[in-house]
Amino acid sequence: MRQILARALAPTACFRRFNSTLIERELAKFQSRFDFPKATHKVWQLYKDKQIQEGIKAQERLPVVLHGWLDSAPRKVSKTRCFANLRDTQFLYRTALDRQGDLLADEEFTSIQLFEDLSEEDGEKTMLRRIKQETCVCVEGIVSPVKGDKSGRLEIVVNRITVLNTTEDLVSQMKGTKEWDPKYRYLQLRTFAMQRALAMRSKIASVVRSVFEHHAFTEVETPLLFRSTPEGAREFLVPTRTNEGKMYALPQSPQQYKQLLMASGVHRYYQFAKCFRDEDLRKDRQPEFTQIDLEMAFVKAAEVQVVVEDMLRTLWKKIEGVELDMPFKKLTYSECMSRYGIDKPDLRSDMAIIDLSSWATSTTNPDYPVFEILKYRPKSSKFPPAEAAPEGYATLRTPLSHRIRLTKEDRNAWLRRCVIRFDLQLQANVEDVAAEIMAKNDIKDGDVIYACTRQRVPFENPTPLGRQRLAIINSTMSFTETDVAPLWVVEFPLFTPAETGRVVDGYIEFDYNRLTSTHHPFTMPNLSSLGAVLHAANDGTSQVDPRVILGQHYDIVVNGVEVGGGSTRIHDASLQRFVLSRILRVPGVALEQGESEPNNPFTHLLNALSMGCPPHAGLALGFDRLCAMLFGSESIRDVIAFPKTQTGADPLVGSPSAVTPEQLDIYHLQLK
Amino acid sequence: MRQILARALAPTACFRRFNSTLIERELAKFQSRFDFPKATHKVWQLYKDKQIQEGIKAQERLPVVLHGWLDSAPRKVSKTRCFANLRDTQFLYRTALDRQGDLLADEEFTSIQLFEDLSEEDGEKTMLRRIKQETCVCVEGIVSPVKGDKSGRLEIVVNRITVLNTTEDLVSQMKGTKEWDPKYRYLQLRTFAMQRALAMRSKIASVVRSVFEHHAFTEVETPLLFRSTPEGAREFLVPTRTNEGKMYALPQSPQQYKQLLMASGVHRYYQFAKCFRDEDLRKDRQPEFTQIDLEMAFVKAAEVQVVVEDMLRTLWKKIEGVELDMPFKKLTYSECMSRYGIDKPDLRSDMAIIDLSSWATSTTNPDYPVFEILKYRPKSSKFPPAEAAPEGYATLRTPLSHRIRLTKEDRNAWLRRCVIRFDLQLQANVEDVAAEIMAKNDIKDGDVIYACTRQRVPFENPTPLGRQRLAIINSTMSFTETDVAPLWVVEFPLFTPAETGRVVDGYIEFDYNRLTSTHHPFTMPNLSSLGAVLHAANDGTSQVDPRVILGQHYDIVVNGVEVGGGSTRIHDASLQRFVLSRILRVPGVALEQGESEPNNPFTHLLNALSMGCPPHAGLALGFDRLCAMLFGSESIRDVIAFPKTQTGADPLVGSPSAVTPEQLDIYHLQLK
Repeated sequence: MRQILARALAPTACFRRFNSTLIERELAKFQSRFDFPKATHKVWQLYKDKQIQEGIKAQERLPVVLHGWLDSAPRKVSKTRCFANLRDTQFLYRTALDRQGDLLADEEFTSIQLFEDLSEEDGEKTMLRRIKQETCVCVEGIVSPVKGDKSGRLEIVVNRITVLNTTEDLVSQMKGTKEWDPKYRYLQLRTFAMQRALAMRSKIASVVRSVFEHHAFTEVETPLLFRSTPEGAREFLVPTRTNEGKMYALPQSPQQYKQLLMASGVHRYYQFAKCFRDEDLRKDRQPEFTQIDLEMAFVKAAEVQVVVEDMLRTLWKKIEGVELDMPFKKLTYSECMSRYGIDKPDLRSDMAIIDLSSWATSTTNPDYPVFEILKYRPKSSKFPPAEAAPEGYATLRTPLSHRIRLTKEDRNAWLRRCVIRFDLQLQANVEDVAAEIMAKNDIKDGDVIYACTRQRVPFENPTPLGRQRLAIINSTMSFTETDVAPLWVVEFPLFTPAETGRVVDGYIEFDYNRLTSTHHPFTMPNLSSLGAVLHAANDGTSQVDPRVILGQHYDIVVNGVEVGGGSTRIHDASLQRFVLSRILRVPGVALEQGESEPNNPFTHLLNALSMGCPPHAGLALGFDRLCAMLFGSESIRDVIAFPKTQTGADPLVGSPSAVTPEQLDIYHLQLK
Repeated sequence: MRQILARALAPTACFRRFNSTLIERELAKFQSRFDFPKATHKVWQLYKDKQIQEGIKAQERLPVVLHGWLDSAPRKVSKTRCFANLRDTQFLYRTALDRQGDLLADEEFTSIQLFEDLSEEDGEKTMLRRIKQETCVCVEGIVSPVKGDKSGRLEIVVNRITVLNTTEDLVSQMKGTKEWDPKYRYLQLRTFAMQRALAMRSKIASVVRSVFEHHAFTEVETPLLFRSTPEGAREFLVPTRTNEGKMYALPQSPQQYKQLLMASGVHRYYQFAKCFRDEDLRKDRQPEFTQIDLEMAFVKAAEVQVVVEDMLRTLWKKIEGVELDMPFKKLTYSECMSRYGIDKPDLRSDMAIIDLSSWATSTTNPDYPVFEILKYRPKSSKFPPAEAAPEGYATLRTPLSHRIRLTKEDRNAWLRRCVIRFDLQLQANVEDVAAEIMAKNDIKDGDVIYACTRQRVPFENPTPLGRQRLAIINSTMSFTETDVAPLWVVEFPLFTPAETGRVVDGYIEFDYNRLTSTHHPFTMPNLSSLGAVLHAANDGTSQVDPRVILGQHYDIVVNGVEVGGGSTRIHDASLQRFVLSRILRVPGVALEQGESEPNNPFTHLLNALSMGCPPHAGLALGFDRLCAMLFGSESIRDVIAFPKTQTGADPLVGSPSAVTPEQLDIYHLQLK
């Protein structure tokens, strides 16, 4: 790479010496580079425009001017004949009106063959052959059908070709390489795949906005220079020279501002919101990302879900040409955990976990009593191994896998292994229980059974069998873009017990007295759980059992990916205060409005709620993730023009960069 | 204000004591606040829906459920009869399709009268009278025409009214005050004017996007975590914990990234870009603002201007119902300066400055030879005084004002005063010159003449007569929203001489050897000026005369406000290097590509240009400014939901806020 770079940046002729003749030559060069003829057509128009098509059939010699890049090195086929391809991807960028999802995939209209014939003595020679690949050119010539081509392909017989900008060898050499150097992201972006990604992202945004407008939403921009808050992930601080020692913070989401908008009388708000997280970048996370953010006043969850379902339905229809079944499927958190072992199940597979509690209970750990199995019917003798428990867990969190032979001995042997592994308490003797399990659960000879245990309301997420199910799906199943399984997951536990950080005989330990918000502290409890929440205050403690208190939070999951999440919010100031001060114990928040609370980070929100803020609910979708999914990529980097690397750097522009003490002085700061 | 606040935040009953009965009452309250009937209509639908209109004419008793706020305190007119108004501004937020500019101004459909009659014994009583102004309510009742009202106004005869959220007295008391406390911005946003501003901004963005889509533009998001650059205004730095000692910077504009997009093969780019400036906030500037940013490949200025003209034409048509004359007027920088004394003239007035060089030249300062006058014909005996020169300028920069009596004596007296004030060299004797000036310039008895001098190519901007013209326009003329004067200003000087900071006998001193970019360093010189630029390098210095070198920069000015600016960019790497290193002398930039230049802040851009980057041109419009203009406000704060104050603070959320040493530790920083 370094060699390539070195060659790429070899000195250019220009300005090496400052003599007038050289300058005159330069001037001539600039004349042609900056004062070029306007394009008469885009390449796609030559294929799509009826008039042109007829003209060509009628043997008219249509003169055209085209702009673009030489897509490949010119191919000299004889002394006088030379071919090349002109690339012009504008086909992807036609007006939203013309655009159709299927066409977005179509590459053929984004380049056209150039033909240079030096045999005819017709004045100017183009010397196409001398021009390098990826050179930026203006082509003047005649459109005509490719000789002897039945498929109706066209070519340009070139009269004149003007170089609008030269290029370094680097480009063509990079094209060969698999891994694009992020330092030259713009070269990678020129490829059809990335041009298509950019066009698609733009179109997705356009479709989403049209859905919002149809539902009478108002787009409102909220500040990016926000304030530091205690909740959520880690934030970026922004020092300012105008307020010594004080700093802004970049928002991790517009959550608080959008709730303030509800108190402001805005009925339906949306925004493509920039969000920021300064954290060690886990796989496919970006320090800055875009969120489709919405909030609605005077509604409950159902109205929000209608809008989101309409949005996704419209997107898949317009981008993929796929019709989604409406309304979307709905499952509770506990249904997801018990059937699929994860709160964002991939429902493209109907494989489900079977709860065997009615036959057996595990006693290894009182907190993990549920004995459950996953059944897999392999097509061959091979089947996925048991998913090893993650780092730190004991082998007990690795499922017990067993290929069943339906002989009495084997099924008993299997159950005995389980009894030993999980200290099972059986409802009857091994033989009867084993027989019943096989019969009642349609377990056939040759099926593979993965067995493990879980909590009644699992906070271990995914569970061992949830991981096992994913492993089986990933290793044995394949899907097409017409396989789309959207799902609403509802009734999450409002609070999650904190992990003590300890692992006790292979089980993660939870502290059911130290609670954090599963979603965020502004989520409304289920009305059915509210009594339990309030009564918890009687003894002045926050002894609420997170396993019984549900919240009005809902996630939208597509193909096992959490695309978005939302909730009905608390719009009652006193209830919000109660949750913040009594249950989450946020420092600085008083239980009573009016008490002096100088360090309350939520004063603005609590005040707004107390001023006639309407009931409201909302949701946020990960826009990058959504685009990647529709684009059919695993990585959101493919749908971001200039993404950051794993280390949070942008090698293209060289950010972040070192700052001088002088720069820091202005902010009254210094490096430690 | 403080008293009001104190009362507002008086302790609420909730949770003061934790006994079960109180909790039961709380639960009942929450039941009604969170589980309320869905709205059957929006207020505007009752006025606009044909079916409903007919039903009412036919004396049908249409039952409705409405949501909103009590717009005023209920008015009890008798023991049994009470009136109030329900506010529901959704009329402003109908789908983009229905929206019409004129309707956006219409307040009548955003509230409806509520009537409570306690005389009829019909079960439940609503007790409307007990409910405070700005309480958030759900109203169930019957629509019927207001008794004895010919204009067809409607009212709701209330059956049940449910309080969805209570409110503090603060709200109604604030409504009285002129100055809204920014701490309670959301209360101000509830007013019709601000609701209209939010709705209009959203609609403007929607219209702008539709124009971009019509012109086949692609929306691309560029990073907000950028790198520190030398050019332009002062920037915000963003420390990150993942890269010790290194920082991002928030972009002042996406200029460099959008040029990289041109090198990336994107033909037409646009974005509503967030931009940031950390500077002492001058009048009506915000530290964060929104820019309509666009760039086009393979084009020259004309194509960009066509798109922008179409955008503004469509906006004024759809928002104001005003047809703009196409194409827009075009003036060069020097025409603007000589005729109007400013580079962003308000052409709603045709008052122009008259150059008297053919009769007289000033010798007070060799740099300011041009003698010019502004003629004003007052309707009364009163006329605007001469505009005093700004702080630091001497009286010489204050125009000489004189009301002409067309007697020989008076006109000679006037000219003599000028001769003395400006050391005029006359082409003939006073008498003849004075006579000619009066005759040739249609100066009538009673006209007021303001006289002053200027540079040939004025870098003093506005000139004294330019300021004078503005003062006259502001103090004597008034315009309506149908008076719209869009203007392209072109052919700016590519470079501006630096001000030495000294004022020599009342004249600002310029250093014609220290040059800065008038627009930015990426602006393309006029081809006619290019020779002069290149030859300047012969002697190895940058002795280019900024007065003769013009740039391909263009501003779009509406009614004297610079709404946007753009330029044709330099897409040739060697020319860009030459301008940066030879003329602007940016540290770290080498003249020759390939020389080692570790500290070149523009390496990424120069590399991109050298890799077949196409010719490109673009422009950026100030979105906040544009919205304010269409909204008819002087201040962009009126069209920003949550603006910062003059000190860069947001008193609502309390940003920026003090940070702890612990917080800074994470970034390896400490306060000085």
